[in-house]
Amino acid sequence: MEVRFSVERLERFIAAALGAQDVAADHASTTAARMIAADLRGRHGHGIFRLPAYSRRIRAGGYNLRPDIRVERQTSVSALVDGDNGLGHVVVTTAVELAIDKAREHGLAWIGVRRSNHAGAGGVYAAMPLAHDMIGCYLAVANANHMPPWGGVEPLLGTNPIAVAIPAGAEPALQLDMATSVASYGEVKLAAQQGRPLPEGWLVDRNGAPLTDPARAAAGLLVPIGGHKGYGLNVVIGLLAGVLNGAAFGRDVVDFNADDTTPTDTGQAVLVMRADLFRTLEMFTAEVDRHIRDLRSSTAVTGGPPVRLPGDRAAACERQLREHGIPLGEALVRQLRSLADELQLPDHLEPAG
Amino acid sequence: MEVRFSVERLERFIAAALGAQDVAADHASTTAARMIAADLRGRHGHGIFRLPAYSRRIRAGGYNLRPDIRVERQTSVSALVDGDNGLGHVVVTTAVELAIDKAREHGLAWIGVRRSNHAGAGGVYAAMPLAHDMIGCYLAVANANHMPPWGGVEPLLGTNPIAVAIPAGAEPALQLDMATSVASYGEVKLAAQQGRPLPEGWLVDRNGAPLTDPARAAAGLLVPIGGHKGYGLNVVIGLLAGVLNGAAFGRDVVDFNADDTTPTDTGQAVLVMRADLFRTLEMFTAEVDRHIRDLRSSTAVTGGPPVRLPGDRAAACERQLREHGIPLGEALVRQLRSLADELQLPDHLEPAG
Repeated sequence: MEVRFSVERLERFIAAALGAQDVAADHASTTAARMIAADLRGRHGHGIFRLPAYSRRIRAGGYNLRPDIRVERQTSVSALVDGDNGLGHVVVTTAVELAIDKAREHGLAWIGVRRSNHAGAGGVYAAMPLAHDMIGCYLAVANANHMPPWGGVEPLLGTNPIAVAIPAGAEPALQLDMATSVASYGEVKLAAQQGRPLPEGWLVDRNGAPLTDPARAAAGLLVPIGGHKGYGLNVVIGLLAGVLNGAAFGRDVVDFNADDTTPTDTGQAVLVMRADLFRTLEMFTAEVDRHIRDLRSSTAVTGGPPVRLPGDRAAACERQLREHGIPLGEALVRQLRSLADELQLPDHLEPAG
Repeated sequence: MEVRFSVERLERFIAAALGAQDVAADHASTTAARMIAADLRGRHGHGIFRLPAYSRRIRAGGYNLRPDIRVERQTSVSALVDGDNGLGHVVVTTAVELAIDKAREHGLAWIGVRRSNHAGAGGVYAAMPLAHDMIGCYLAVANANHMPPWGGVEPLLGTNPIAVAIPAGAEPALQLDMATSVASYGEVKLAAQQGRPLPEGWLVDRNGAPLTDPARAAAGLLVPIGGHKGYGLNVVIGLLAGVLNGAAFGRDVVDFNADDTTPTDTGQAVLVMRADLFRTLEMFTAEVDRHIRDLRSSTAVTGGPPVRLPGDRAAACERQLREHGIPLGEALVRQLRSLADELQLPDHLEPAG
């Protein structure tokens, strides 16, 4: 049984829950907005679903709730943001806003982030520059290692995602948001919580055999896309989003699912570019539109759905969820109500409320 | 039967063949160096193997042999390079050298390229900044469309590759060079030329069935890595390397295997960053070394080879080929000898020569 709640109500709920746990009001509302933005794109594994885990970490003292987020090593087109172990959504939002400001003036900007935390769905951050007619790109070191190097069995790598958003004209923006593993660990967790069998190809066991039992998910190893190619992309992202910034990667990564107190020293990186870097915005977006339409109107596999563009599903999902509300599963609603009880929140997510 | 030739001899052979076809001496030697650099990395599908096709195109008038390669829309950290339909290896080399100069001064640089041509192996260009303690990244729109959009059957996309090179300290640099398809079309062409059956998973036919017959390769559709993920990455690369620069993408791509005269308007993009953007070079490379060793020394799959890092194969290949020479297959040697005859080159690649 799923229950649907409006975007506004869930954002208020998250902000209230974080506020009741001593998160500053502006940090609470920023985090709520980014979490619900993940749900709106259909990335429910990075949405309100994470609130109980974030809350557990907050109360265990794993976050700095009054972080001094500092901009270091700054040039006109680059900077290192030290998140001071604040909430990842707030730290990365700071980095993206800084990148937008620098790119507006100088064409492009690269911002590295260290001492950050899990920030949810990368596509949310890659999309922020779209409103400024800019291209956004986000790379992150994931917060738990469940993938071995190619040919290995020790889980030394996370799902290290990449997200890119490119403005279009009349068409929806082109948006990519992908883990370099076949499945993200958020998807695995959500499926495991719901007791759904895991699709073959998501996880293998230490002998390389497919693992589909949701109850055994914790023993599984994630599989990279395209074998050694996804592995290579994963390591490159880890070095650029983590090691370049002095943030955690490889054996240094803290499993934030298992450890609520050790600072994760999460690394992220943001690249923002003006879409009119080399031609007028109108010329660029008109050409993007033309190519999107060429792809979309091309012949589909017989009997299959029409050809989709990266970002179509997220855009359709957002339209649908804004109109009909965000569906939450029974188990999650129970967890959120129990959190509301503990924190004595005014809203207990009763369907009528 | 394979015959081995030294690096120097093959470079001289290519430069002489291009020179005899009216390519300026400096462009001929740059192109020869980049082509053999591809062979040295084991990317034989982008090495001297391409000389007969490039030569055919040159003599058909498909290249501008005296291009005016112009730098346009220049800022301190970006520029658009107009290749004026020159040889791709020369145009991209210009772009990478410009990016290195700008990144040295300002930390990073993004160079877009248009009106270029096929430039061979992306990893060769991504690696050029390594000698300057910089990180290189290369994106390209491939020169033939053999991949449909995900869910489609019309080949509107190329293999659109990405290559990244990251400096290490004592360890070999971390190097990624991948097509966003499971196989590159260069690999397909090489296997087809050698009559080897194509591995399952490289190509499908228009009904989605595996296609492994090398004789039917031309009818096959390339498969993206990770399904919709590789498709999304492919489109993103096409927009950033092509459309952003006003270069060809999608339906505008000229199949340079089938058409020797229409300018390809190839788009490429180069991102170069100083490796010491956020910490000292020594700190960065020491940390990269540490992580490389952690991955390399981790437990391998039982009975399998040791864990490899992206770039290990290319580095080992280069050592081996520099020592023992580059092996060329019989069919290719015949083609090169016939080219040498036509052009009356002094070297006919006789084994004793």
